[in-house]
Amino acid sequence: MTQKQELLSKINSKSALIGIIGLGYVGLPLALTFAEKDFKVIGFDIDENKIPLLNSGQSYIKHIPASRISEQVSKGLFVATNDFSSVSMCDVIIICVPTPLDEHREPDLQFIESSALEVSRHLREGQLIVLESSTYPGTTDEVVLPILQTGFKAILGIELDDEDLPKREFKVGENFFLAFSPEREDPGNEEFNTATIPKVVGGMTPNCLEVAKTLYDKVIVKTVPVSSTRVAEATKLLENIYRSVNIALVNELKMVFERMNIDVWEVIEAAKTKPFGFQAFYPGPGLGGHCIPIDPFYLTWKAREYDINTKFIELAGEINTYQPYYVLLSTIEVLNKHSKSVKDSKILIVGMSYKKNIDDMRESPSLKLIELFHGSGAIVDYYDPFIPKLPPTRKYNYEMSSIELSQTTLMNYDLVLISTDHDDIDYKMIADNSKLIVDTRNVFERKGIRSKNIYKA
Amino acid sequence: MTQKQELLSKINSKSALIGIIGLGYVGLPLALTFAEKDFKVIGFDIDENKIPLLNSGQSYIKHIPASRISEQVSKGLFVATNDFSSVSMCDVIIICVPTPLDEHREPDLQFIESSALEVSRHLREGQLIVLESSTYPGTTDEVVLPILQTGFKAILGIELDDEDLPKREFKVGENFFLAFSPEREDPGNEEFNTATIPKVVGGMTPNCLEVAKTLYDKVIVKTVPVSSTRVAEATKLLENIYRSVNIALVNELKMVFERMNIDVWEVIEAAKTKPFGFQAFYPGPGLGGHCIPIDPFYLTWKAREYDINTKFIELAGEINTYQPYYVLLSTIEVLNKHSKSVKDSKILIVGMSYKKNIDDMRESPSLKLIELFHGSGAIVDYYDPFIPKLPPTRKYNYEMSSIELSQTTLMNYDLVLISTDHDDIDYKMIADNSKLIVDTRNVFERKGIRSKNIYKA
Repeated sequence: MTQKQELLSKINSKSALIGIIGLGYVGLPLALTFAEKDFKVIGFDIDENKIPLLNSGQSYIKHIPASRISEQVSKGLFVATNDFSSVSMCDVIIICVPTPLDEHREPDLQFIESSALEVSRHLREGQLIVLESSTYPGTTDEVVLPILQTGFKAILGIELDDEDLPKREFKVGENFFLAFSPEREDPGNEEFNTATIPKVVGGMTPNCLEVAKTLYDKVIVKTVPVSSTRVAEATKLLENIYRSVNIALVNELKMVFERMNIDVWEVIEAAKTKPFGFQAFYPGPGLGGHCIPIDPFYLTWKAREYDINTKFIELAGEINTYQPYYVLLSTIEVLNKHSKSVKDSKILIVGMSYKKNIDDMRESPSLKLIELFHGSGAIVDYYDPFIPKLPPTRKYNYEMSSIELSQTTLMNYDLVLISTDHDDIDYKMIADNSKLIVDTRNVFERKGIRSKNIYKA
Repeated sequence: MTQKQELLSKINSKSALIGIIGLGYVGLPLALTFAEKDFKVIGFDIDENKIPLLNSGQSYIKHIPASRISEQVSKGLFVATNDFSSVSMCDVIIICVPTPLDEHREPDLQFIESSALEVSRHLREGQLIVLESSTYPGTTDEVVLPILQTGFKAILGIELDDEDLPKREFKVGENFFLAFSPEREDPGNEEFNTATIPKVVGGMTPNCLEVAKTLYDKVIVKTVPVSSTRVAEATKLLENIYRSVNIALVNELKMVFERMNIDVWEVIEAAKTKPFGFQAFYPGPGLGGHCIPIDPFYLTWKAREYDINTKFIELAGEINTYQPYYVLLSTIEVLNKHSKSVKDSKILIVGMSYKKNIDDMRESPSLKLIELFHGSGAIVDYYDPFIPKLPPTRKYNYEMSSIELSQTTLMNYDLVLISTDHDDIDYKMIADNSKLIVDTRNVFERKGIRSKNIYKA
């Protein structure tokens, strides 16, 4: 039997051991999805705090219930560890690590590289390695493959003992298999989850594609094979570039229509009644989440290598990045109408996560808004039922806790700013008890709450 | 009975006489839709050639069958005329005239203004006037209303006899009614037609909205009332700006991915499998049609009045306008690979209309391509089963006729350029008998035809 046949047979009998590297918003639900389809799964993460939580059946992500984790742990189908030596036991290793931007808006591949390094250290014949992290076209073949195949020394310049060196004679598509399959997680989406969202798969070789497709076919409703890892990488970028550009477009039109005294939300609702050729996007206080504000710039960076600019991505970035500043200006204008300066005003920001009904703070524009209001001399508090305490992020460390929302506390503030429109908030009480309100999400209108103290921004 | 009640009762009993000004791609199907729902309709057009054609039951638009026209003519429900004095007989007047751009990319409202002028001349109490032409927010209240209400003299500076002056005491919403309802025609769409596409309606006053909505409710599956004519005007622009920007986005990504050796069409097909948050648009040789290349700049022009730029519209315009040049460069590159210059090469352009399966030449990029290839010294012919002879347009007057497509004729050409992908073309024969092919629509791939002489652009 060839390595491929052996691995296919393990996958088909579900005796293949699955290793998932990175147990965040992508890796954890993916690990559970495999376990729920009766694969044994080892989850790897460098964050030591996560391991005991998971192994005792607890969750650290709001929309993933602890019961899903404890069920698989108690069945012996899922275990978490930070000991990467177990990678060698796994038949399949799926890398789901973050791909952030550095402070110069350039790709930061350190997590992909260090994961590939760990895999390389423990690589053995017959393994399938899949990268799921969103990244620029070329990452799998130009970055991951060389680390796996020829050793990381050449790439990272690290000196290692001989026994740590990977088996250099390994040939991709014969001795081991490498694929890219972009994650399409949508936290909080009640209609679709990991198992029911079709999955694009591209292999380094036809054998790699065959093995990876067979794997995902076992757990995902539909797999979509494409001709290369580069096409698979580009697919995820197109999806997120499309979103970033269209959100920026409505943000720009919000500002244009606002000058003309036209309510952009009413226009969008009307346009949405066109039964073809239109998809509604909504303005907001800025982009958030790990994907939309970041992924597009991976293409921008890569395109420079080919002497070409990605103008739409740049323009979308410019307009979306400006949105918190626009909200600040709109707020200043509203306060000014009531003869108040933003300096020394007490502002309550409602909603901290980057989108509604989740507790995900990554890249949330609310964090930027706190910074901007502080910079203008305002006194800022926040309310978010999902974020009792603001966690420190790469950029911000505020040490703030959510206030209690009540008639009495609302009266303390000169202005309430709606930044995220969680469903589970009493907007009527906010409308009735706030001096002034700036609504960046059109939530009051949507809930049929009208009041003279509400301004849109 | 008030004027409103009287008009409503005529509309409800279908005894209201409908006048449609402008019998083109929008006005003609709208006139037929009213007639098919048993309203009597008079169609007005300044083009004298159209009148006898229509009155003898003939069609000049490919996707509107003559039988639809002759049926209504023979029933006595539809008649066409260029005598605008009959406007005074009509209870409802719907203006469906072109809104082009002038050579400086600025709105050219001459057809709206002259139509409003004609209506103004014949305005009588109890009439409803609706504008359907795509235009910038403010056209109905700032341009049409003053012409109707206070006389066109003030607007156009034309001296007229006293008896020609409109009745200046007319009050909108009481003595006559004015609304804006954007057309949403999509020529060639087999799923939706005039009667089944929901229609947005905005009135100058609540009475105007009520009357206009009652009218369209009689013939359209669903009407969508909005708060003002400006919101209705903005809605149509948003729909077309969205399309223009998204087509430009994939055109830009085509050029970026092409450098990276990634097939943008494969990427789009893969992204399309995402079941939420994505809508597929496709690259092409440039924008065409009367709406998408033009409407967005109406907003750009109006926005300048408010000291604000519409950057996405400008960028989309820049990239979409560049596409024919990109196709020229790609073609030159393909010829060059075979050691041929474009100068003196014989090029056959397949497909002249701006999109497939229709005979609409308005703003078709194929016309621009002929100009560019001529400019480079190529000898150009074209083939289009729907366009036997190139009609003169505002910009171009080529005096060319479609060639016959055959194995023999194909051999005469150094290169065949697919510009529009009509379904009813024998692509297999083209692939088998052409020396070189440049495919701007990915039609061969979609039809499963592969050949080494096909290049994508």
